[in-house]
Amino acid sequence: MKFELTVLGSNSAIPAHGRKLSAQLLNIKDELVLIDCGEGTLLQMFAYHIKYSKINHIFISHLHGDHIFGLVGLLTTYGLNRRKKTLNIYGPDGLDLIINVQLKLTETKLSYELVFHRTDPQQSTIVLDTPKFTVQTIPLLHRVPCNGYLFREKNQQRRINKSLIDHYDVPFTKISAIKEGADYTTPKGEVVTHQQLTLDPLPERSYAYCSDTMYTESILKLIEGIDLLYHEATFLHELLDKAQKTMHSTALQAASIAKQSKVKQLLIGHFSSRYQTPEVLEKEAQTIFLNTEAVQEGKTYPVGVEPILFK
Amino acid sequence: MKFELTVLGSNSAIPAHGRKLSAQLLNIKDELVLIDCGEGTLLQMFAYHIKYSKINHIFISHLHGDHIFGLVGLLTTYGLNRRKKTLNIYGPDGLDLIINVQLKLTETKLSYELVFHRTDPQQSTIVLDTPKFTVQTIPLLHRVPCNGYLFREKNQQRRINKSLIDHYDVPFTKISAIKEGADYTTPKGEVVTHQQLTLDPLPERSYAYCSDTMYTESILKLIEGIDLLYHEATFLHELLDKAQKTMHSTALQAASIAKQSKVKQLLIGHFSSRYQTPEVLEKEAQTIFLNTEAVQEGKTYPVGVEPILFK
Repeated sequence: MKFELTVLGSNSAIPAHGRKLSAQLLNIKDELVLIDCGEGTLLQMFAYHIKYSKINHIFISHLHGDHIFGLVGLLTTYGLNRRKKTLNIYGPDGLDLIINVQLKLTETKLSYELVFHRTDPQQSTIVLDTPKFTVQTIPLLHRVPCNGYLFREKNQQRRINKSLIDHYDVPFTKISAIKEGADYTTPKGEVVTHQQLTLDPLPERSYAYCSDTMYTESILKLIEGIDLLYHEATFLHELLDKAQKTMHSTALQAASIAKQSKVKQLLIGHFSSRYQTPEVLEKEAQTIFLNTEAVQEGKTYPVGVEPILFK
Repeated sequence: MKFELTVLGSNSAIPAHGRKLSAQLLNIKDELVLIDCGEGTLLQMFAYHIKYSKINHIFISHLHGDHIFGLVGLLTTYGLNRRKKTLNIYGPDGLDLIINVQLKLTETKLSYELVFHRTDPQQSTIVLDTPKFTVQTIPLLHRVPCNGYLFREKNQQRRINKSLIDHYDVPFTKISAIKEGADYTTPKGEVVTHQQLTLDPLPERSYAYCSDTMYTESILKLIEGIDLLYHEATFLHELLDKAQKTMHSTALQAASIAKQSKVKQLLIGHFSSRYQTPEVLEKEAQTIFLNTEAVQEGKTYPVGVEPILFK
């Protein structure tokens, strides 16, 4: 089952150098969720052929325009498309007012239910718990209340041990039950247990989105050992003063967070428009944490290792 | 002096077939004004290399998302660019609230003054009067209060009569004074009057923007004889029922308005997404009013005839 991230926007503040504003699409086992929604996000989803009607959960980190001004257009587009499914939006206090004022004054009646879930940017809480995954907030340090999100796969099934299935010549019709926990009895009456026929599940995969934030070690524990961390890296470290003043991070700081929290892979983004290309930021981060990549819009990044299931 | 229109968006409701949402840039004698501002307008201005910092007046027709959701992003971008000049926004009641709520909740302090001018969509009034041009509202008929805008050039200078200037061998240094009204005395003492040396000004050029509206003859008088009319044409006439229900116009109706009001040229836009290309709409309109063009995004349309001035 998929767990992968598609980056839709990577620039900070305003679009520049062909880079758009913050937005990411996460596919967790065919559940699509949107993270942040800068102006133009809908157009980016068109451009990358994303089935945006499948999104049921939208996670907003904070109420700065470059992360939210595309939201109302997306919501009204769902209305024009006669969406029926409830849409859940998670974000700090005030987001509901921003949206509702616009819906009211544009006399827009949505065809579906919109449910706002207010996050508490001061403390980490689980804001969504489904059979497939959980979503937990990550308190961040920015000029306005801001929280990131930690997405954790859960209940990953034991994997069919293909070689033993072959060895015992288990009929295809039994596979589904074995996956669910059944033993298998051979034609000769030998019982082969579920434990024998299956392998331990792979570790549960995890992704953390941390934008916007200044350097803070308070997040280390929460994101410890995760598969993929997206951490903002607005500036090079030579602009540390500016980063601190605007409560953003440098590429070196993002890498330091990745290293200390022992994540497996780091993506950096939210680039300042002063950087024509983000290569310099990527290189700086790699001096501390080699497995770093500057995000590219339209590119899809797998999260962790996909379990190999018997098909 | 220029009087020309650049179309930035031409689709209705949602972006489709590469067409963006309603927005137009009018250059009247080097004064840039923006008309409507759907989501993505800023990106369109980037794409067409428009000096958007020069815009001092923004005219909004009505409070539907496809005409306004790009506005707050543009306003905050001006702030990030440290704009100092006052920005004037004209539009129906509620626009100020939509913008101000977002600025407040995103804790955005603009670097410049923003002045809202509330229009009265019930009656035509002059909302801007400058030495170069006037702007007057055009009451329209739509599902929410809506008005178009009529832009009229004014005080067009008398034109230098190049053949007489050549005949009398008038020195270049005198041209400016002659333009302003001075006579010219030849070295032999002959007085040639300002009237002789100049030609009547060309008629004052005019442009009307009418979107969104159902067919209404109430606008005929206001737009009579103007150089260029933009009139929405969301549907083909075979969908007249739908046009009436949604309070939009058909291409045939737009053409009928153009014909009855004896405008010189018609542009149609605000196309329904059901039309892959707007050619069918253009063809339908041309059966009634031949000088019709379906707008193309990025294309610039001159308004009326540019006066030929002696340079």
